[in-house]
Amino acid sequence: MVKVAFIGIGKIGQTIAYSTILDGLVSEAILYDIIPELPEKFEHELRHALASRGISTEVIGTNSLDDVNNADIIIITAGKPRKAGMSRRDLFVDNAKIMIDFANKLPPRNPGALYIMVTNPVDMMASVFMRFSKQYTISTGDQVETMRLRSYIAKRLKVPVNRVTGYVGGEHGEDAVVLWSTVKVNGKPFEEVAKGLTKEEVENYVKSIPGEIIRVMGGTTWGPGTIIKDIVRSIVLNEGRVMSIATPRVYEGEIVHISVPIVVGADIGPSLEAALPEADRQRLNKAVEDFYRVYKENLDHLLQTIKQ
Amino acid sequence: MVKVAFIGIGKIGQTIAYSTILDGLVSEAILYDIIPELPEKFEHELRHALASRGISTEVIGTNSLDDVNNADIIIITAGKPRKAGMSRRDLFVDNAKIMIDFANKLPPRNPGALYIMVTNPVDMMASVFMRFSKQYTISTGDQVETMRLRSYIAKRLKVPVNRVTGYVGGEHGEDAVVLWSTVKVNGKPFEEVAKGLTKEEVENYVKSIPGEIIRVMGGTTWGPGTIIKDIVRSIVLNEGRVMSIATPRVYEGEIVHISVPIVVGADIGPSLEAALPEADRQRLNKAVEDFYRVYKENLDHLLQTIKQ
Amino acid sequence: MVKVAFIGIGKIGQTIAYSTILDGLVSEAILYDIIPELPEKFEHELRHALASRGISTEVIGTNSLDDVNNADIIIITAGKPRKAGMSRRDLFVDNAKIMIDFANKLPPRNPGALYIMVTNPVDMMASVFMRFSKQYTISTGDQVETMRLRSYIAKRLKVPVNRVTGYVGGEHGEDAVVLWSTVKVNGKPFEEVAKGLTKEEVENYVKSIPGEIIRVMGGTTWGPGTIIKDIVRSIVLNEGRVMSIATPRVYEGEIVHISVPIVVGADIGPSLEAALPEADRQRLNKAVEDFYRVYKENLDHLLQTIKQ
Amino acid sequence: MVKVAFIGIGKIGQTIAYSTILDGLVSEAILYDIIPELPEKFEHELRHALASRGISTEVIGTNSLDDVNNADIIIITAGKPRKAGMSRRDLFVDNAKIMIDFANKLPPRNPGALYIMVTNPVDMMASVFMRFSKQYTISTGDQVETMRLRSYIAKRLKVPVNRVTGYVGGEHGEDAVVLWSTVKVNGKPFEEVAKGLTKEEVENYVKSIPGEIIRVMGGTTWGPGTIIKDIVRSIVLNEGRVMSIATPRVYEGEIVHISVPIVVGADIGPSLEAALPEADRQRLNKAVEDFYRVYKENLDHLLQTIKQ
Repeated sequence: MVKVAFIGIGKIGQTIAYSTILDGLVSEAILYDIIPELPEKFEHELRHALASRGISTEVIGTNSLDDVNNADIIIITAGKPRKAGMSRRDLFVDNAKIMIDFANKLPPRNPGALYIMVTNPVDMMASVFMRFSKQYTISTGDQVETMRLRSYIAKRLKVPVNRVTGYVGGEHGEDAVVLWSTVKVNGKPFEEVAKGLTKEEVENYVKSIPGEIIRVMGGTTWGPGTIIKDIVRSIVLNEGRVMSIATPRVYEGEIVHISVPIVVGADIGPSLEAALPEADRQRLNKAVEDFYRVYKENLDHLLQTIKQ
Repeated sequence: MVKVAFIGIGKIGQTIAYSTILDGLVSEAILYDIIPELPEKFEHELRHALASRGISTEVIGTNSLDDVNNADIIIITAGKPRKAGMSRRDLFVDNAKIMIDFANKLPPRNPGALYIMVTNPVDMMASVFMRFSKQYTISTGDQVETMRLRSYIAKRLKVPVNRVTGYVGGEHGEDAVVLWSTVKVNGKPFEEVAKGLTKEEVENYVKSIPGEIIRVMGGTTWGPGTIIKDIVRSIVLNEGRVMSIATPRVYEGEIVHISVPIVVGADIGPSLEAALPEADRQRLNKAVEDFYRVYKENLDHLLQTIKQ
Repeated sequence: MVKVAFIGIGKIGQTIAYSTILDGLVSEAILYDIIPELPEKFEHELRHALASRGISTEVIGTNSLDDVNNADIIIITAGKPRKAGMSRRDLFVDNAKIMIDFANKLPPRNPGALYIMVTNPVDMMASVFMRFSKQYTISTGDQVETMRLRSYIAKRLKVPVNRVTGYVGGEHGEDAVVLWSTVKVNGKPFEEVAKGLTKEEVENYVKSIPGEIIRVMGGTTWGPGTIIKDIVRSIVLNEGRVMSIATPRVYEGEIVHISVPIVVGADIGPSLEAALPEADRQRLNKAVEDFYRVYKENLDHLLQTIKQ
Repeated sequence: MVKVAFIGIGKIGQTIAYSTILDGLVSEAILYDIIPELPEKFEHELRHALASRGISTEVIGTNSLDDVNNADIIIITAGKPRKAGMSRRDLFVDNAKIMIDFANKLPPRNPGALYIMVTNPVDMMASVFMRFSKQYTISTGDQVETMRLRSYIAKRLKVPVNRVTGYVGGEHGEDAVVLWSTVKVNGKPFEEVAKGLTKEEVENYVKSIPGEIIRVMGGTTWGPGTIIKDIVRSIVLNEGRVMSIATPRVYEGEIVHISVPIVVGADIGPSLEAALPEADRQRLNKAVEDFYRVYKENLDHLLQTIKQ
């Protein structure tokens, strides 16, 4: 019996909550948002859906963080989206302040909870939240890219998507790296079956498709919502699926989050890093360094901002 | 192996399509909308979600009705929403014209398809579509109200929602009628367990909650999306669930759609009307008359409009 | 959260318990049998299965009826099978005595429980159990025959089984009657699509197939186990599926159980009897009379036997 | 759309087939056994079950291997059980001969199929089948022991089973080794939470429980049936769960099968061996050597037997 809190129920938060709750994974759900009436009205929508499925999950919408108690898993989607003209550092600072606030308020009421970060820049927000909360935090990282990778290869090569494996690692977003050694179609290496499909085309799709979807649909919701629900599912049902999510590691004295394929169940780990070929491991090491460099700079800036 | 076409993929259309496809009910799905690029981008979102679930359903987004071929089930959500200052008759005329267009174009390419109407005013649109297409058409009718009814009673009486039964019948919307004889909690009549909860309060909730959700969230999606998916599920898996949907009957020479509890499976029927007490049956008969009166007026107006 | 007790875990009891528990319908399960060690070993088997699915249902095997407490649903499969040379009346008496024992012991510890009878002769055992326990009891009745009917028509006419509807009613077993007015393929009456398949052939299959399976496999388990699990599912999730199960009615002052298509959810009912054509209703009425006649005779014999 | 053949439908074969087919994983199923009428009657049982679930999977029972065509996955449970007084080597020879027969007959008609071995001694039978068929073959290995391990720890420590992780590796059966470095409860090492539960007690349970179940119930079915179904599920839906199954490796020039935790999806691998601590890796290496020694001896004996 699992109690899950959804912190933030904008578009993506709603989709994750809906998928997770309707999948029957949750015995109790808390829906939190600062927007007045939104959690309560979303609660009603979910209740109507649950009535049809005969699921009697307890669902509570609230505008008060005080109601977020004794959760086993806390999924954070709250924060600002990146607006036109906004620098990445500005987004970092704005959302990091929100995470620090959550880091102060959530742990005392939710002992032993697992935190799953979804707010962007997602890996850095996970690092910030964990630094200030001292709570174990994972980032949904590159699992979304991983599924976009498989989806595109399947579509282009006209094979069922459940015949394609492979992972994307590194930092979520533009710097994510396809771990080509892991990409297989029907168990055969990508190179053997590619029939003219180039790695560049695939990598380009993985990087450009979210922007394309956002341009037309206003945001990515159905894909990430389902994929993140499956991360929760693998934890709650202890499925032990290998997923490319970002878990904490210490680098130069700081907690950093970088995605590698890792076993996701009641225990998060071990990672498959040791099973990867040298070339892929080096790219992941470089991703850690790059992440640290930018993160440290942003973090220092943040710490100065807060002090003032 | 079922092929389903989703005609219209705005907010509610997307939610129905997502729920239906991710529930594994569909072997092939066609996503149609007139908005450029929307079906194609939604297709990508769904592909990413399906990759995570390992479901290899074929999904095709299109802006052309010509691509809607050989579907077994066609779900229509396309149409205009009611805007401020717009009369109900104006909404009827605008959407009825769209339905007539679909009624001309869809049947030749989709022999034997079952049509499920969701566009509002939903029962009248079902009647219009069936009149002009000569194809068997159902309206999702009062199944949404039915689940809202159960949800509210469960919440107020603090019982699990899967212990509450009961149906709402008549025309979808403000004139829907709670069939109180069917309302039971743990198998006991509502009156025995109501503990101060009045029928008026329940009826008021069923009527007012959609407006409340629309005001705060911009539309009702998660509730209706799931409930309508369950109608499709009961048909596709031949579950034979009793649901309060509107099926065609002839009254004064016209096809009209009024919701009564009816068995929903590979065959739609029989209805439970004969098992209802006299009082409830009379209310349903009155609903048929009222529906006919308004519908006939609107229809005549529409026919004149078209002629011009 | 539903607690279910399985009284008897022979072959069919195991299959029902396995299907029900692994379907995630149960939060707590009690497995009872008189055979030493069997419930405990079966408990281990189920625990291993649940570990793989990540379901944390509480399962307890026991040889003591004292451990059967606070169940919401009690499924009875315990009893003797009919052996060669044994008359039906002898089987009735042997198993009725077991039911009377359960009727004395189970209700005090399980207030408000719903009883589902599976032990043969199933409808009469339901009537006996309800007579002596004063507890609401249903018999799984003809739902198994109903699915065998649909299965055979689908196989012979080469259509997917989820396109066939129709019910078998009356007493479970040799006297069950196909309600031909309800049989449809793709929504069309049987007569229109039968292509040479006769009603006699179908009826013969429904009656003879269990014997055929028993002869080769030693018993029917997978079919009835799944079908009876679906009855439990429809109750627990309040699906409201129409199923042909036997519910109590009073005839000539005695409770009797005869199957008719009826809504199965949190509330059992209403039945579709009123929606059936006159001919089918008459056959069901005759089934009630026939049932009563044999039942009354057996019951009188039983009461005498007990008195002695 | 996956076609699966079940070679052997005794008790365990039936349970695997039932679980796999009813889980909706299969679009076409072939049920093969040498016992006359058994496949055909089991087909009927499954058809009745599928009717209730509305699943239209094509199921065909047959006594002829010629009907096993174009399967994607072939699950072998056929063979003799070990009888009292029978040496392990005798069992090896008897079943190896059956496997060689299958190895000759199945591959020509089923190009590209994946073979899953269940017949005991399971790992050796997988090696024999792969040696003679040249087809990729996996053994269900220690995944059953893995779930028994988790189940027992959960029961004894009174935690939900979905909070326990850990794997058993090495050869299936008496020589299987618990990989204690992987055993965690709520993410914490076993040692921290054991509260007096010893490793010896746990290991003893894993080794003795199948014998206990066989003694009372006549065979283990529900546990292995579900667990093996989940292996099939992870492959078919490309879930990528980490499972302890035996995959082929070459040792001293022979193909041998030893279980290690490995990713199970459309591609089988990579294994988590490299992520294990030195001590566990050494135990697995020793298991390979021990397996090879006994297997080679048995294999030589078999080859001599065949020659004669």
